[in-house]
Amino acid sequence: MANLCAPEGIGELQYQMVKELYPYCRSITGDGVRATLRAIGKKIDLQIHEVPTGTKVLDWQIPKEWNIRDAYIKDPEGRKIVDFNKSNLHVLNYSAPVNTKVSLEELKQHLYSIPEKPDLIPYRTSYYKEAWGFCLTHNQLESLKPGIYEVFIDATLKDGALTYGECFIPGASDTEVLLSAHVCHPSLANDNLSGIALLSYLARYLGEHALRYSYRILFAPGTIGSITWLARNAEKVPRIRHGLIVSCVGDGGGPTYKRSRQGNAEIDQAVEYVLGRQFSSPVVQDFSPYGYDERNYCSPGYNLAVGLLERSKYGEFPEYHTSADNLEFVRPEYLEQSYRAVVEIVNIIESNRRYRNLMPHGEPQLGKRGLYDQTGGANEKKDRQMAVLWVLNQSDGSMSLLDIARKSGLPFQYISDAASQIQAAGLAEEVADVRL
Amino acid sequence: MANLCAPEGIGELQYQMVKELYPYCRSITGDGVRATLRAIGKKIDLQIHEVPTGTKVLDWQIPKEWNIRDAYIKDPEGRKIVDFNKSNLHVLNYSAPVNTKVSLEELKQHLYSIPEKPDLIPYRTSYYKEAWGFCLTHNQLESLKPGIYEVFIDATLKDGALTYGECFIPGASDTEVLLSAHVCHPSLANDNLSGIALLSYLARYLGEHALRYSYRILFAPGTIGSITWLARNAEKVPRIRHGLIVSCVGDGGGPTYKRSRQGNAEIDQAVEYVLGRQFSSPVVQDFSPYGYDERNYCSPGYNLAVGLLERSKYGEFPEYHTSADNLEFVRPEYLEQSYRAVVEIVNIIESNRRYRNLMPHGEPQLGKRGLYDQTGGANEKKDRQMAVLWVLNQSDGSMSLLDIARKSGLPFQYISDAASQIQAAGLAEEVADVRL
Amino acid sequence: MANLCAPEGIGELQYQMVKELYPYCRSITGDGVRATLRAIGKKIDLQIHEVPTGTKVLDWQIPKEWNIRDAYIKDPEGRKIVDFNKSNLHVLNYSAPVNTKVSLEELKQHLYSIPEKPDLIPYRTSYYKEAWGFCLTHNQLESLKPGIYEVFIDATLKDGALTYGECFIPGASDTEVLLSAHVCHPSLANDNLSGIALLSYLARYLGEHALRYSYRILFAPGTIGSITWLARNAEKVPRIRHGLIVSCVGDGGGPTYKRSRQGNAEIDQAVEYVLGRQFSSPVVQDFSPYGYDERNYCSPGYNLAVGLLERSKYGEFPEYHTSADNLEFVRPEYLEQSYRAVVEIVNIIESNRRYRNLMPHGEPQLGKRGLYDQTGGANEKKDRQMAVLWVLNQSDGSMSLLDIARKSGLPFQYISDAASQIQAAGLAEEVADVRL
Repeated sequence: MANLCAPEGIGELQYQMVKELYPYCRSITGDGVRATLRAIGKKIDLQIHEVPTGTKVLDWQIPKEWNIRDAYIKDPEGRKIVDFNKSNLHVLNYSAPVNTKVSLEELKQHLYSIPEKPDLIPYRTSYYKEAWGFCLTHNQLESLKPGIYEVFIDATLKDGALTYGECFIPGASDTEVLLSAHVCHPSLANDNLSGIALLSYLARYLGEHALRYSYRILFAPGTIGSITWLARNAEKVPRIRHGLIVSCVGDGGGPTYKRSRQGNAEIDQAVEYVLGRQFSSPVVQDFSPYGYDERNYCSPGYNLAVGLLERSKYGEFPEYHTSADNLEFVRPEYLEQSYRAVVEIVNIIESNRRYRNLMPHGEPQLGKRGLYDQTGGANEKKDRQMAVLWVLNQSDGSMSLLDIARKSGLPFQYISDAASQIQAAGLAEEVADVRL
Repeated sequence: MANLCAPEGIGELQYQMVKELYPYCRSITGDGVRATLRAIGKKIDLQIHEVPTGTKVLDWQIPKEWNIRDAYIKDPEGRKIVDFNKSNLHVLNYSAPVNTKVSLEELKQHLYSIPEKPDLIPYRTSYYKEAWGFCLTHNQLESLKPGIYEVFIDATLKDGALTYGECFIPGASDTEVLLSAHVCHPSLANDNLSGIALLSYLARYLGEHALRYSYRILFAPGTIGSITWLARNAEKVPRIRHGLIVSCVGDGGGPTYKRSRQGNAEIDQAVEYVLGRQFSSPVVQDFSPYGYDERNYCSPGYNLAVGLLERSKYGEFPEYHTSADNLEFVRPEYLEQSYRAVVEIVNIIESNRRYRNLMPHGEPQLGKRGLYDQTGGANEKKDRQMAVLWVLNQSDGSMSLLDIARKSGLPFQYISDAASQIQAAGLAEEVADVRL
Repeated sequence: MANLCAPEGIGELQYQMVKELYPYCRSITGDGVRATLRAIGKKIDLQIHEVPTGTKVLDWQIPKEWNIRDAYIKDPEGRKIVDFNKSNLHVLNYSAPVNTKVSLEELKQHLYSIPEKPDLIPYRTSYYKEAWGFCLTHNQLESLKPGIYEVFIDATLKDGALTYGECFIPGASDTEVLLSAHVCHPSLANDNLSGIALLSYLARYLGEHALRYSYRILFAPGTIGSITWLARNAEKVPRIRHGLIVSCVGDGGGPTYKRSRQGNAEIDQAVEYVLGRQFSSPVVQDFSPYGYDERNYCSPGYNLAVGLLERSKYGEFPEYHTSADNLEFVRPEYLEQSYRAVVEIVNIIESNRRYRNLMPHGEPQLGKRGLYDQTGGANEKKDRQMAVLWVLNQSDGSMSLLDIARKSGLPFQYISDAASQIQAAGLAEEVADVRL
């Protein structure tokens, strides 16, 4: 099994991809998503699905497709004071078209700002209630003078399709790992271009290696996207053994992990273990039924082992859903840290096995088998020696390598390497995994 | 199901009842208990039982009936220096009669005081060893001068009966909730006129509502009273699903909850949940086999789910079993707080159910079912919306509403309301409770 | 069942034994071990086993026998600067013989010192790699001047035997308690003459009492000794129900307890309970597969309930494996404390039973059975009364007396005495222990 690691320059590569995708005006449907998926498809083998408006998906229906070309507000003097071309956050996402003149008073009923953060443009949506509107800074809103304003949104809301992308990387087993990022947010860098970039580069990297599990990487609009995938893939759902939603992984906060509904699934253990070793103060929270697509994967009828990995938690960082979630907020070094964490999580689920000690009575004599004199510096040597003892002692067929790593406090890699050495020395055999 | 709440002025009502019953000289048998039960019987439909002296009850026998008319000590000058009419605590409870003259030295062998609390009269009993005695302040005891004292206790200890009262409120099910207060203490306000008053008003209130469970409210002397009830009602014991001993609920301390012997019964969960929300620092303790009547209900042969609810814990507040446990120590506002807690505990056990999500695959679309736009202020709205998501996500048939309330941190009422809405929308069905 | 206690002067007796055995030059084989076992055999009935070199024991082979008569280094002026007769730590334990002259440079490749503790001679071994060497203080090593040194080790490494001793004390049941100390360290007082002395006197004391379990006390070289015993006694292994490795029990640190691999075996509970009551800050650690002979008894094929009891933990006290682990480091009072702890642990496993309350419905009337008025001072009286209530309440056949002692926080002796009283009063019966 390949020991995966973060490729050189992976932080910068992800960052450049965030930068490339930042200008697109994405929504839950429409050409913004299509352009994004096309860009991803240049890096990896991406299957793009189009699901027609009106299609029934579980309890939902595919909504109309939204496309926008231009939008602005002109003040009484005819100056464009709010311009979609300057920031696509200015338009209420999924807004109905409009082309009219209104008084300031009426206009204000269609304006969104954040009084507590007067310099920032908010990101707002109106998916399931048809409405038009603009978002702007509170400072600008406050400065508007009475008069007649021209409002123009050149958008269409009509039958079309919902678009999502799927990258499938076959492994030795058809048991699957699901990795998913939402693609419905417009010019927001952390939420969720960071997740898109991380999973794109991870998919490319995984595709170059022999893997134990098959990997399914989804790029789909939030909520309705996972609903749609679940509705269309009932036969694939039971194959999913581990899953991770990846979002907001480009800032320097957290990391934050929300456990799957199962609470102590192997993916939960793996993520907690990795974050605990790679970060100084990770935050781990129990599942709650609000958030990103884990709310659907973890609905009680599926109850999949899918957790949510983020740096700062959605809704809790000041830049969240504002124009401050921009290309300065996410940094290559944070993207690289996040990538390293995900790769190590993959390493663990790829390598996690159970062994049975074949010489379980007393400690075997390690010296004569070359298991005593471990290489490495003084500390590593000692730790690797302990890893051999731990694996021998705990391998009764029930404890996984991850269980042993957690119990011993040693690096998973040392435990995994020790297991390989012990197996090679004929002292242990792998226990068959009936789910593979 | 009615949503029970504390009636207007319930604190003052309870307090007036404490005041009314305070002067009676109660004991484990006798007319003091009878008068108390008669007073309770004016408020609720109370069945009064008389069990003859000598009747075998489990491992015990009904003791003699004790009645007292007068008692005093006269000093060598013939002045009444200790007078039963001033405080019934002055007489050793269940004291044998006496009418004689004794030296100070001999008298002192029959006097009880508390050197550490020299201003207070202690409450002492001698139930199972025949003896006569008086209780007085340590200051008074110290001031007694040598000489001959006249001691007089006009009491009788003879065959009669043990008296207890029982109020049964039938509900939809004959599965029962047992609520119990001891009625054997004389002029002590908190221990346990507070419990008597709370359960009297609660019984009256419960009787006005349609209930899921049947309620049995017992007013019986401590220890021997519960032994007697258990001995005479073997066929009813298996019907008891939840139980609470209520005592010392009129002071401002605690609250203190002692778990049932089961430790994590539904009543334990409900009480802990309610106290945690209604009070800033409730104390919850594991079961121990000493205390009030829970020691009998939780004996291993019964092992009923019966806990003990108090404010300050018996034996640990300075006023405990002294003349300071008086009408100034208990306050209407504390009685009202305690009542509110018990009513909310009843609400929870009345409303606690399990549901099964009928659309468990993915999150149902709430908007089209009117489950999205919850009414209420901003925070309540958000919490009520979350309650809907929590109930949907957790309702796999195994989690109760109380489990969900505890897990989510949301008010039980929101969870319960959400379940009703979800059920009304056809998204969930109640799981039958085989014990009802 | 006898209530065992620490005999008068037991600290001093142990200390004198440590002192007597201190000069012997022990190793994993050879006459040092034999002399030690003979000395133990003067105090207790010890069966001494000799297992020939080359015998296969589990995955190991009995190594050659090592004996040493003299050893020294002479400096270029012919002065003995390192002398085995002054401290047997000066010779690398199990060293090959040597008799030659070497330059300082070459000599240094065979010298061991501790730069961080320049005044102490280290204890070093070379069991499984044939080598010769000397140990000395770092100060002395630093002071050596260039020149030709004479090195002489009059030792033999040849076929012989491994020697270990075994004391078997039969009890009412042939289910066994295993107590073990390693005997392979030369002049080190705490590690492990303290353990040898404690178990010798304990064995003598146990032999004078009627016991429930049979006791097997092993004195064997570390690692290879337990391997050898296990290999030769496969039929006895299943009889071992509780076990304790005793080492480093003569200093004032800790105590430290390392749990058995099972983690919550009865021996683990008993040790933790006793240490928690007898010491102010005992340290309890989970099992790890490195250390003394527990690593073999707790290998997964045996998984015996064997823990490790120490004061300061091996490897963590500054005197560990140096000349400072001497007769001043261990003290009679610490040996006495350790002995008291082990005796109390034995008391608990000897007395731990399960009872079934025969009158489980309600609290039995204790007064009429003489179970109410417990003797003793005010606090003891109260605690002994509570012990009766606890045993009655918890004795449903599943809870052991130790479980009840832990739950109640009362002394095990009170719980055990209460159970005897209750049984004598006909209120409870002992539940048969199918493993005895």
